Amino acid sequence: MNKSELLESILGKRSYLCVGLDTDPSLIPAFLQKEKDPVFEFNKRIIEATADYCVAYKPNIAFYEASGAKGWESLQKTLEFIPDSHFTIADAKRGDIGNTSGLYARTFFDPASSGLDFDAVTVAPYMGFDSVSPFLKYKDKWTILLALTSNPGSADFQQLETQGRKVYEKVLETSLTWEGSDRLMYVVGATQAKELEIIRKIIPDHFLLVPGVGAQGGSLEEVSRLGMNKSVGLLVNSSRAIIYAAKDKNFAQAARREAEKVQQEMARCLDLYYNY
Amino acid sequence: MNKSELLESILGKRSYLCVGLDTDPSLIPAFLQKEKDPVFEFNKRIIEATADYCVAYKPNIAFYEASGAKGWESLQKTLEFIPDSHFTIADAKRGDIGNTSGLYARTFFDPASSGLDFDAVTVAPYMGFDSVSPFLKYKDKWTILLALTSNPGSADFQQLETQGRKVYEKVLETSLTWEGSDRLMYVVGATQAKELEIIRKIIPDHFLLVPGVGAQGGSLEEVSRLGMNKSVGLLVNSSRAIIYAAKDKNFAQAARREAEKVQQEMARCLDLYYNY
Repeated sequence: MNKSELLESILGKRSYLCVGLDTDPSLIPAFLQKEKDPVFEFNKRIIEATADYCVAYKPNIAFYEASGAKGWESLQKTLEFIPDSHFTIADAKRGDIGNTSGLYARTFFDPASSGLDFDAVTVAPYMGFDSVSPFLKYKDKWTILLALTSNPGSADFQQLETQGRKVYEKVLETSLTWEGSDRLMYVVGATQAKELEIIRKIIPDHFLLVPGVGAQGGSLEEVSRLGMNKSVGLLVNSSRAIIYAAKDKNFAQAARREAEKVQQEMARCLDLYYNY
Repeated sequence: MNKSELLESILGKRSYLCVGLDTDPSLIPAFLQKEKDPVFEFNKRIIEATADYCVAYKPNIAFYEASGAKGWESLQKTLEFIPDSHFTIADAKRGDIGNTSGLYARTFFDPASSGLDFDAVTVAPYMGFDSVSPFLKYKDKWTILLALTSNPGSADFQQLETQGRKVYEKVLETSLTWEGSDRLMYVVGATQAKELEIIRKIIPDHFLLVPGVGAQGGSLEEVSRLGMNKSVGLLVNSSRAIIYAAKDKNFAQAARREAEKVQQEMARCLDLYYNY
């Protein structure tokens, strides 16, 4: 999915919601546990219930690979079930030396190899340009680089001062020099909203994937006010608050209501802050 | 496997060689391609051929997950085939917010969850303490933190100056303050040998996992001279130079000869530099 298609989807739905499919097998309602693949059955119902209100889905790969090969099968079935109208993100936070990152890129972008065909994958920057460039070689795919994450540990290294700026700012600046940098997006935690003005000075045009609204305490209004650009430029993720809105037979309806609530707040934010 | 068992294994074999099982399905000899699981059959023969000369095996997870669920099955069978006498490392370079890293830890350390039971896993530090601590909670396991990697991109962020030192030094220093830091090892590329003196001042006692000897050009002699400590403290990895030493019917014997050659050089290095 390219940038203008993504923008069209956002404006059409008046939503920049990404639903995080962080599906923990132990949190799936009891009545689904007797299914052959409870994780897929759960995801299927969540996707059916929320598709009207979101533009993207983001399975966090840890939740699938923790079940080994079986988890990878659930992941593949889930991805195949997501409608083509929706942007898909493998939240994998991979990164390794060049030839190995090439294999990680193949994992998430090349269905002939792994069975998976995501639009985007999250990548960790610590190992530098040659750990990211194999992902950027896929011309119709997106690489979402960790910049400033939502967790407390983001202060340990991302916020270190270096050459008059912070390490995460250096990550943003340096990544702009890489070939294919127009196919980058960046992870910026909603809990870091106060830094969004600095971030938007460095990367005014790129999309941000913003986790941390909801369970982690970030503000959607603040993120939207400070982070929106002329292509909206935001995908705000919510996982637990939506998919575990209820844990009984009605979990899917509860997820739908929760997604609708977020969408309505997003529609208000678009009215207020999207002036293009 | 604990530290004294690892040291005993190293001194018994006069080897600190780790064989990297970076098994690319397209590089497996033709005669194995007709097997049901060529990757496992290849690994099995490599392990049988090299076990006498190495103390550890390190499957790089990218090479397995690039084949999806099938790859995870090959990985599990490979891990089960590695003798208990050998230290096992999942080279996964994972790292995410706390609850997600907890699932990655479960993936590689908890056989009841994923079928996998590695001794150690490699972890990326960019997201800070709460992305690493879930791995450190496993009291009989090892977390191998990326410090200074062997690839060209290591200069981009790891070598940035911050507060009178480099980012990777800050990673080493900070990680020592984390609970369970005695269960840390560190990735230091052999191509970075000139920094080993600085590194050994910060972490005199920890084990280093050293990739980059061989194909990437690092020197085993230099790494051994500068990096050895009182528990030897080194696991030097070689992947391609051993497992692809030949690509015909005799690949396993060729791998054995290559591993023996490295072991003999290691025995000489132990004579020269291990004085405890």
